[in-house]
Amino acid sequence: MDPRYKPVISMVRLQKRLHAEDAKKSEGDATVAGWVKSVRAVGKLAFVILRDSSGTIQLTFKPDVKDFESVKNLTPESVIAATGDVVRGKVKSGENELVVKEWSVLSRSETPLPIDVWGNTPTGLDKRLDWRYLDLRSPKNLLVFRIQTAVEAAMREFWLKNGFIEIHSPKIMGSPSETGAELFEVEYFGRSGYLAQSPQFYKQMAMMAGFEKVFEIAPVFRANPSETSRHDTEYTSVDAEMSWLDSEEDVMAHEEKMIVHVLESVKKQFGSEIKEAFGVDVVVPETPFPRVTIKEAHKITGRAPAETHDFTDLDSEGEKLMGTHIQEKKKHEFVFLTEFPWAVRPFYTMRNEKNPAVTKSFDLLWKGLEITSGSQREHRYDVLLKQAAEKKMKMENVQFYLDFFRYGTPPHGGLGFGLTRFLMQMLGVKNVREVTFVPHDMKRLVP
Amino acid sequence: MDPRYKPVISMVRLQKRLHAEDAKKSEGDATVAGWVKSVRAVGKLAFVILRDSSGTIQLTFKPDVKDFESVKNLTPESVIAATGDVVRGKVKSGENELVVKEWSVLSRSETPLPIDVWGNTPTGLDKRLDWRYLDLRSPKNLLVFRIQTAVEAAMREFWLKNGFIEIHSPKIMGSPSETGAELFEVEYFGRSGYLAQSPQFYKQMAMMAGFEKVFEIAPVFRANPSETSRHDTEYTSVDAEMSWLDSEEDVMAHEEKMIVHVLESVKKQFGSEIKEAFGVDVVVPETPFPRVTIKEAHKITGRAPAETHDFTDLDSEGEKLMGTHIQEKKKHEFVFLTEFPWAVRPFYTMRNEKNPAVTKSFDLLWKGLEITSGSQREHRYDVLLKQAAEKKMKMENVQFYLDFFRYGTPPHGGLGFGLTRFLMQMLGVKNVREVTFVPHDMKRLVP
Repeated sequence: MDPRYKPVISMVRLQKRLHAEDAKKSEGDATVAGWVKSVRAVGKLAFVILRDSSGTIQLTFKPDVKDFESVKNLTPESVIAATGDVVRGKVKSGENELVVKEWSVLSRSETPLPIDVWGNTPTGLDKRLDWRYLDLRSPKNLLVFRIQTAVEAAMREFWLKNGFIEIHSPKIMGSPSETGAELFEVEYFGRSGYLAQSPQFYKQMAMMAGFEKVFEIAPVFRANPSETSRHDTEYTSVDAEMSWLDSEEDVMAHEEKMIVHVLESVKKQFGSEIKEAFGVDVVVPETPFPRVTIKEAHKITGRAPAETHDFTDLDSEGEKLMGTHIQEKKKHEFVFLTEFPWAVRPFYTMRNEKNPAVTKSFDLLWKGLEITSGSQREHRYDVLLKQAAEKKMKMENVQFYLDFFRYGTPPHGGLGFGLTRFLMQMLGVKNVREVTFVPHDMKRLVP
Repeated sequence: MDPRYKPVISMVRLQKRLHAEDAKKSEGDATVAGWVKSVRAVGKLAFVILRDSSGTIQLTFKPDVKDFESVKNLTPESVIAATGDVVRGKVKSGENELVVKEWSVLSRSETPLPIDVWGNTPTGLDKRLDWRYLDLRSPKNLLVFRIQTAVEAAMREFWLKNGFIEIHSPKIMGSPSETGAELFEVEYFGRSGYLAQSPQFYKQMAMMAGFEKVFEIAPVFRANPSETSRHDTEYTSVDAEMSWLDSEEDVMAHEEKMIVHVLESVKKQFGSEIKEAFGVDVVVPETPFPRVTIKEAHKITGRAPAETHDFTDLDSEGEKLMGTHIQEKKKHEFVFLTEFPWAVRPFYTMRNEKNPAVTKSFDLLWKGLEITSGSQREHRYDVLLKQAAEKKMKMENVQFYLDFFRYGTPPHGGLGFGLTRFLMQMLGVKNVREVTFVPHDMKRLVP
């Protein structure tokens, strides 16, 4: 063997080991490595169930194997490697097992474990998050992040096929973006910087740079003091922006195609695993998705008095009612809410030509939860200046952004959403922290 | 037409327009939209060179077109849309042009422009960055970000094919990571948070969670007071981590395969454009890349006195000399430097079993610049504790990280690099800001 490597057992390289599930299907010699799920001594033999990222395999130890006695003393979650013969299993499942010829302890786990990795003993979310890396060892949690990987891959695949450019915009900004509320401040060489709450201004800058179509998947930050199940202080924002729009309808048409592509891809790769682990079906939606004006949505849900229909967003109960309504009437999990009033949308949103009280904007609800906001943006410098003034923006904070509109601007628009919200709705999970790798909130900054 | 759309000219939707380069190859009717590069009046006619993300097309305006006189008053960089007939061009290039039937100004540019978008008048970098969105309009700058998109896509493609999981780790941390130097501090609900300098601790956490192989492409932050051409205060870090290593050699073998895949993909898509715009060839390297110990590298470059060979890194002049040496001796652009002394590597690096004065670590140089650092990590809790103490780490800062090692750890290692450094070396660009979308440094936080 190449002297640069230091094999832990025999002459078998760890990198050449088999995954547990592959080893069970192989014949002859095999090497596996992973975490000890359980140890059992039966008569003269000892059995270990070994777990890795693929699944589990039973290891059988006979008394003549080296260090046989210490097998029985292996603590749960210790890491071992073993090499031996794959033989027909005698266990009920009929799965093959590995009769160990040689083995090695790579890392011994302390005992007792602070949480039950296998979820047999219910543990509060807070404690599980204290030990997030142990919590993530459950196959269901690993599955979440395999699915997340596939979701992002499918989104990017869609965008690349459609000529989008990937951008990485600054996360420390020189002035508070948008509202100035819920901002994190950074000490920046003797002055104040602010953590970006969205890549909004910069993805629009890319349009003025002629990039035409861009996307970004990156962290955004909100100093959100609430501790609801839907909010983190930082999360992964998925953003797209595109030029040469005729209306916000182009953005909606783009988004529904993207979502169909993502759900087709996820269903194909993980449909049955999701059904088994989360009890939900991944449904590939029909296009076009239903579209309902926010005014109409208020009438349907009756969540606001008639006279204020034009001036409010739906509350979370209203979103749920709307989700149920669309499922019943249209047999659809998605609905675009459109024509949000100018009063509740940011200053950069384009207003409707015929009715300036409403904007060329939309939200997308999935199973009764808002998962996206989007709009056509105002690209005309003079109109944008008026809108900023009307919304009482502090001009010194947005001047650098307004400057983007002085030297030729294409009509454009886009959308943004939280990656974890998308996952929550896909998997029917109730708390965003369950689908966040390492969730942080107002109280939690560790690990 | 669908009443939801508001076409800017005739009944042609902007979303259905053709790119300039496609329009030139088409026949009959076509619609285009973009920025006015130049306007020329010749006899009774007016000509506009229109630019979009694909290239340029000549528009010919005859006196009978509506608003003919205002064509001549179009300011450079104004945005227009035009529809008409594609006809055989009479210009030297032989390219087709568009005889305009109808047109519309979408956005009029102010004049004069603050910088020369076409780079015919040299403008200092600082001024160009003040107007970055105009600076990015040059085709060469757009090309940089099309290439960046392709580089990232190829990396992810390689990782997905090899079973990696994509992670998004927290960017605000509860304690200073690693050294504590060059940290940005964030006011976090009455206490201090710190912007992540790397995803190091969290990508290792994923190994302890059993994710096995992960990658992340995300921003990292360094409160770096220097203003060299190689440093930003935030940049996009590309990170990978993998379990079940036999040595750091596994990480190097992984990286060289990844780089070959990326360069093959970029060469195929952009090889000739890169040659034309940047004057460099994209060379797909042979594997394995040359490997030289840092001790040997010091002997070769003579950058440090013999007695300290074991205890220093190469300085930037040394990196250049090493790059030249490898190109001459091995005809190779890349070289791995290995076996860095324990004194210059972080506490979590695994030491060499036979010689604990050196570590199982490496740097990768490309054309004489360090573009990656990597290593096998120390996964044994007791050894790691000793190493942290020996490096005088503040235990309260790293305790949450050390806790990751208590309940079963696989041998693992990984690598990290700055996306923009990779692009710099690929394109032969001298300043990292040229390949950064919106560069920020100690003095610059706007735009």
